Order: sequence, then structure tokens, then C-alpha cells
Amino acid sequence: MILSAHRLAHLLGHASPASGPAYRDIADRLRLLVIDGRVIDGTRLPSERDLATALGVSRTTTTRVYAELRDAGLVRSRQGSGTVVQVPRAASSVSSLMATPDDPDTIAMTYSAWPGPPGLGRAFELAAEKLPGLLATTGYLPDGLPRLRALIAERYSRDGLPTDPDQIIVTNGAMGAISLVARTIGGTGSRTIVEGITYPHGADAFAHVSGRLSALPVSDRPWDGLDDLLASGRHRAAYLIPDFHNPTGAVMTGEERGHWGRSLARHDVVPVVDESLRDVNLDGITLPPSLAHHNPQAIVIGSSSKAYWGGLRVGWIRAPRPAVMPLLQARMIDDLGTSAFDQLVLCELFEDGGQTLAASRSRARAARDHLLGELATQLPDVRTTCPAGGLNLWLTLPERVSTPLVADSTDHQLLLTAGPRFFPGAPAAGERHLRLPYTHPPEVLTEAVRRLALAWDCVASGTATAGTKPTIDLIA
Amino acid sequence: MILSAHRLAHLLGHASPASGPAYRDIADRLRLLVIDGRVIDGTRLPSERDLATALGVSRTTTTRVYAELRDAGLVRSRQGSGTVVQVPRAASSVSSLMATPDDPDTIAMTYSAWPGPPGLGRAFELAAEKLPGLLATTGYLPDGLPRLRALIAERYSRDGLPTDPDQIIVTNGAMGAISLVARTIGGTGSRTIVEGITYPHGADAFAHVSGRLSALPVSDRPWDGLDDLLASGRHRAAYLIPDFHNPTGAVMTGEERGHWGRSLARHDVVPVVDESLRDVNLDGITLPPSLAHHNPQAIVIGSSSKAYWGGLRVGWIRAPRPAVMPLLQARMIDDLGTSAFDQLVLCELFEDGGQTLAASRSRARAARDHLLGELATQLPDVRTTCPAGGLNLWLTLPERVSTPLVADSTDHQLLLTAGPRFFPGAPAAGERHLRLPYTHPPEVLTEAVRRLALAWDCVASGTATAGTKPTIDLIA
Repeated sequence: MILSAHRLAHLLGHASPASGPAYRDIADRLRLLVIDGRVIDGTRLPSERDLATALGVSRTTTTRVYAELRDAGLVRSRQGSGTVVQVPRAASSVSSLMATPDDPDTIAMTYSAWPGPPGLGRAFELAAEKLPGLLATTGYLPDGLPRLRALIAERYSRDGLPTDPDQIIVTNGAMGAISLVARTIGGTGSRTIVEGITYPHGADAFAHVSGRLSALPVSDRPWDGLDDLLASGRHRAAYLIPDFHNPTGAVMTGEERGHWGRSLARHDVVPVVDESLRDVNLDGITLPPSLAHHNPQAIVIGSSSKAYWGGLRVGWIRAPRPAVMPLLQARMIDDLGTSAFDQLVLCELFEDGGQTLAASRSRARAARDHLLGELATQLPDVRTTCPAGGLNLWLTLPERVSTPLVADSTDHQLLLTAGPRFFPGAPAAGERHLRLPYTHPPEVLTEAVRRLALAWDCVASGTATAGTKPTIDLIA
Repeated sequence: MILSAHRLAHLLGHASPASGPAYRDIADRLRLLVIDGRVIDGTRLPSERDLATALGVSRTTTTRVYAELRDAGLVRSRQGSGTVVQVPRAASSVSSLMATPDDPDTIAMTYSAWPGPPGLGRAFELAAEKLPGLLATTGYLPDGLPRLRALIAERYSRDGLPTDPDQIIVTNGAMGAISLVARTIGGTGSRTIVEGITYPHGADAFAHVSGRLSALPVSDRPWDGLDDLLASGRHRAAYLIPDFHNPTGAVMTGEERGHWGRSLARHDVVPVVDESLRDVNLDGITLPPSLAHHNPQAIVIGSSSKAYWGGLRVGWIRAPRPAVMPLLQARMIDDLGTSAFDQLVLCELFEDGGQTLAASRSRARAARDHLLGELATQLPDVRTTCPAGGLNLWLTLPERVSTPLVADSTDHQLLLTAGPRFFPGAPAAGERHLRLPYTHPPEVLTEAVRRLALAWDCVASGTATAGTKPTIDLIA
């Protein structure tokens, strides 16, 4: 794969105003792109001259950038074939890349994902009792298990959004849903609206099929500026996260849902409404009805992974009737269906009287409060708010150092996703921010904040080293 | 969606030499495209004049074609908006479209898929014993459960293809694997080689990303002509099914694997080797080693759905090391991983000493032999061979009537996939063929052949009616 200078400059974002020479800052950023897997093994980088032009720096600077990376063993340069990324052999074993919260030494805060909550084992047992009926079928369920689709439809109807089971397609998690919707309604030549701060894989799924995103401006509310973008009149879809917005935690008000739902309808732009965090309502606040209430074209996405367990790869799409057939047809060249047994398990979870969900919420609430406390004590200069739901805090750093902070953290065995990754239109604006999931036991959260504080001290004192442990760019 | 006259003409294929007027033949073909979901609800058809030009028939003919479909309630025409496909309201409920082998009245032979074999329930029980260890993790397994990846790698190594677990990515079934590979190595501007007769969704997955397929010529062996196509030198990948080829049942010989493996390597074309039927070896023949043995670039695809059960959505990719990271990275905007529990179940199946697989094979063998017997008795003019593996027979019809035969069968509540669907480069060549899965109990197979014989009589006597029950184009 060849990476153009223009594209690399975009990925690198703007320079930090942090102290130190420019080449080191650029090298740090480039190192992080390799470390988090966004520039992959074997990629041919642009020439030093082209990169210098694209970044508006001197040729001497880019020469030193590549020299730094060569010294760190992350690129090799060869006469005639330019500079090529090489992930170190030992580190390129896949298992070493897949650092997860299950890894004993490293604390991964790239995922917001828990072990199974109390009650989940019981749901598996109850599902197992119903297994014989399922084994008597072929198990192919391209649209989903009828009982599960009925239960999901009933949940929407109860929430004031009348829904027929035929409007529900069960998918492989919310990501499977986003990707299927993107491939069905996106496509060459289309342009998708995304929030200025958003869930990176969601935006990427639309970018991958259409190649073109219009990011909303970065603002206090993730949806400010939507009217202006709609007025430009050339969008097919808008990917939005109104409930406990990932990563900011913001909740779209009822008025906003009404206004934007109608506005999108008027411009014939399909809202793709990611409600995968709607059930992770830690403080039990009253959420406004779905945006789909105000827009009959809306495609709504839900999931069991955040509210229950990531190992259940069960998400779903609620689509208006005319959209169902094209989605199902597109799925035939995609995955043919979702695990039959996982769907049985989710049925049991939906019928347990809310016990497992309550246990899961209460665990998350305690963790959130613990993390807030640790931050206040160990990193008092960092600002954050207490989100009413979702699985992460959204930090504002006192300086624009998210990338070097995250790079240094890897050497303290703390894996984070740097702020810029959540800003599809203006990566540099993410340098003041950090997403911090609280999906760990209290003692691990305490230790994570201790490591973050160590990294912070290194960055602040200019003694930061940039880690070289590559990971996969998996953000959940 | 607007369908061009050119594209519709391609989908319709050539006229059958069957008796009767041309307009009825074309109307039958078009009806079948709507019925099997390949031309979907809401599609705007080309004008009568454009279609007449594209098909080389008179305007009167296409006028009558659209009139026939209007009478059947499958299209509506309105001043100014042309002729639009409308699937009848009652029939467009998704559940009525998803006729599966589990449907009590209809016999679906579009799937080759069984209920779970004896022994599968036991594997679920054993997996449940290991559930607590799994629930203690986040369950996110973007590359797969380590134990399962080790078991799969071991199987390849034992078969003479040394494999490290890091070369294995567990996917959502074989289709999830094909689709991920297509999106990673295909892409705009690339061209993929497919067999002249092949598994339709596999070819579609590559066509969807690259838009361009080069189908091998239709011949006695699915791989004849590969050398010529390679010599044309503009392909990135070749999607091939060497083991119990779907749908023909052919097995690539050891010599062919060596020759084509090396030939593909010489031309730098990546073989995507679909081995999802390799374990469905009904007669226990000695299969030649994988084509990957002769080509280090080969990407191999395997699956548990055919050998065990379709409800387990677990397939996998075996890739050369440099291809692993790009595949995993592409997966992040796809589905984030496969059901954790399903993977535990497959581990148990791989470690049961081959009992479940043997039971599954013996059931399929008996069904195959039963279907062969019924065909010989009830439809003696149809030719077929006895495949040593796989889950379907491949019929040669005495006349070029596959499409009208399948259309008429729907009225006898027998769902089939017409031959042309398996011929990506030359649909008309499929009119002599029919794929007949034997994944049903003997009494159902007897009844299916009875219904097929009824449809055959109607087609032969010119009294065929074309069914109007639409289905989803799901072929497994």
C-alpha cells in the first residue's frame, strides 16, 4: 500500500504547540499511527520531499523524522523502494497486538467492554434449555430469530415507536449493523454526514464505502451546524449517536430530535441513528423518544454488546419497511446471518425482568464514580463531566498533548486511543481530549490513573519516550 | 433504484428455445428475477423501447412483457415514473420471503443446510462447562478465540500445511471470510477471476467491491482456461473452490493444484481458496493437499456451517503472515468479531474424536443416495453424477428450461435456484442445469422430486404457470 503525502499529512494532523523540535513532534505522531495500526505493516511512505511540502516544513525535518523511525525499528529505507513501514517481527505476532482488557499486565482502555455481568451465565443456561428446538432447524437466520425480532419490535413499540417484527434485522453486533447500512445506502458518489466528534469505526465504515464524509463542526453540542450542512444539499445519510454520545456522553434533547429529525426528512437525508448505548443509562434518566419518532426514513441501530456483553455478537437494525429488502439482500454477500444460540441468549436477557441489565448498570455506575474520584485526586488539572450513561469519561486536557500522552502511556503499559481519532474532520482539535473507559474493576482503574499520571509527568517535563508496542486499532 | 436496459438484458440472459411466444419467455424470466429477489421491490425498470433495443426484440414484445407482469401484480406503471417493481403487499412481509427448509409446507432447496447433527447438543453442553472462563473476559475476539485458532492451525499443519495460530482469523461463517477477503484485497479497479460455474454469493462479494469479474469459460472442468486468463495479466485475485466444488461437485486433482498454484504465483494473482466443503467428504476419498501448498500467497477459507451446522456462524481465514494485519484492520469496520460461545462449541466439535462429523457425513451420504434413486425413478431423463462430497447434486436437464422449471416449481411449493444463477459469465449456459441439495430427510426428498416432476410435466407440455411467491436470494 502506498500512502500519499497529502493523506499522511491529514492523518498526522497539526503540530502540537508542545516544546521541543518539530521533527520530534512529527515523528511521535507518525510513530503513534504505526503503533495503533492506522498505518499498517508494509505501507510505503511518501518521499521526504513530498512529505515536507505537504506539511509545510523543511526537507531536513522530514529526513530526521524518517531517521528517528528507522532508529526505532519502525520503518526501513531501501534504495529505489523508498521508506516502508515495518512492524517489529516479535511485536507483529497477532496475539501481541491484540492487547485487550483481558491481558494481565497491560491495561487496555481502547475498549469500553466488561466481562459478563452477574446473571449472564443464568441466561445461557435458560437458552440451553431451548436449544433442542433450535437444533431441529437449519440455524440459518438471515433476518434473525423470530422470537428475538418480536421482542425487539415490542421494545420499540413500548417506547412509543410502533414496530413490526418484519422491520427488525438481527446483525453481528452494532458494528455489523453500521457496516451493512453503510454498504446498502452509502456507495460510490454518496456523501455521509458525521458528527465532528464521533465513534471512529462508525465514521470509517461510511468513509470506506463512499469515500466521502462531511464532518459537523466541533462544537459544544455534537450536532450544532447540522442545518448548515443540510442546506448544502448533497448528502444521502447522516450517522448520528443521540443517546450517551460516544465519546462525549452528550444526550440529544427532545427538541433537538424533533428539529433535526424533521430537518433531515425535509432534505431527504437518511438518519442512521446509533442507539447502541441507549440501554446503558446509568442514572436512569428519562431519555427523549428516538429520533426515528420524528423521521419515518430513520434507520435505528441497537446492540447487546454494551448493555450486556461483547462476546454476544448480537446487534440489530430497525428499518422502515421499504429499506428492509435491500438490507437483507446486501447481507447475502456479507455474512448470511448471526449466531443462532447468541440470539436465544439475548431473548432470555430481554425476559429476565431487567435484572441483568440492572446489575450491569450498577457495576458501571460504581466504576464511573470511582474513576472520577481517582482523576480528581491524581490528575486534578484534567477536566471532565459525569456522563449519565455510556461507558467512558471524556477528558479535556490542560494542554494539546493527547498524542504524545498516549504514545508515552504505552511504555507504562496503558493503552489509550488518542483524542484525534475521534475527530474525523479536524484531528488536531482532538489534542485537548482523551476518552477514558471505566470498564475495569476499581483497583485497575486506580492503577490506570496512576500510569496516566506518570505519562503526564513525562510529557509535561519533556522527558516522554514514545512507546513502540503496536496494537490493533480496535475501539469499542 | 434504476435498472438500465443493458443490465436487465444481462440478468435476463438469452431466450430459451422452448416453445411459445417470445414475450411469455421474457416475462417468465423477469418474473423469476423479481421472485428470487434479484430485482428488488421499488426498482424502476427500463422503458419498453430501451428494453426492446437491448434485447433485440420488437417494442410490441416488451409492451406485452410489462403488461403480463402488471397483470400478475408484480409491477406498476404510472405516467411519468415508468414501470416500477412492486412485490405484493402480503408477500412482502419478510417472514414470508424467508422460506427456509424449516418452513412446514414449502420445500426449500435453495439452501444446502441441515438441522444440527447428532452430537451437536453434547458439544454445546461441554462448551457450557467452559463458559465461566469466557464470561470472565470481555468476549471481544477480533481474530478469534486463541484455543480455536490453535486447533484450526493444528489441523492445517497435520494436513501438511504448516500453520501458526497467528495466521488464523475466525470469521462469521465462510461468507464473512469471503466478504472480508474481497474487501481487503479487491477494491476499485481490481479484477477478480472466478470459475465459469461457481457459488453465486462468493462471486457477488468480489463483484460488489471491484465491480469486475473475469469468469473462466464454462467447460467440463471448472478450472479449464485459467492459464489463458492469467496470461491476459490484469487480475489481483482468483476465487476458486477446489474441494467438492459448489455446485458441480468436481474435485481439483493434485496435478491441477500444483500447476495452477504455481501459475497463479507466477502471475502474482492471489488465490482465494474456498475449502468450506473440504470436510464434507462423504465417501472418505483422499483429497489432494490444499492448493495453498503450492502457493505461499494463497488465502484459504474454511467453515463449520457445512460440516456441522449453519446456526454456528463460525468460519475462518488462513492467511500468509503479511496479509493478516490488513485483514484484521479491515474487520474493524465490519463486525469486530465472532460469537465467543459459538467458537467454544466448535472447539468441542474439533475435539470429539470425529464422531459428530462422521454422523453428519453418514446422514448426508444416505440422503445423497436416496435423492439419486428418486431422480432415477421419477425423472429418468435428467442426468447427474454421484458427487464424492458436498451437499448437492448437479443436474443436467434434457432441455434448456431451468428458469421456467424453477418458476413453475414455486407454484408447487418447491423453491430452487435456477441454473443461470451459478454462471456469472454466461447465465444462458445455465439453462441446462439445476442444483439440487439433498439436505432433507428421505421422505421430504421423495416429495421434492415428485413436485419437480410435476413442474417438469407442466414445462414440457407448455402448461407451466409461473409462480409469484417471492423469496430472498439466499443460497447456501
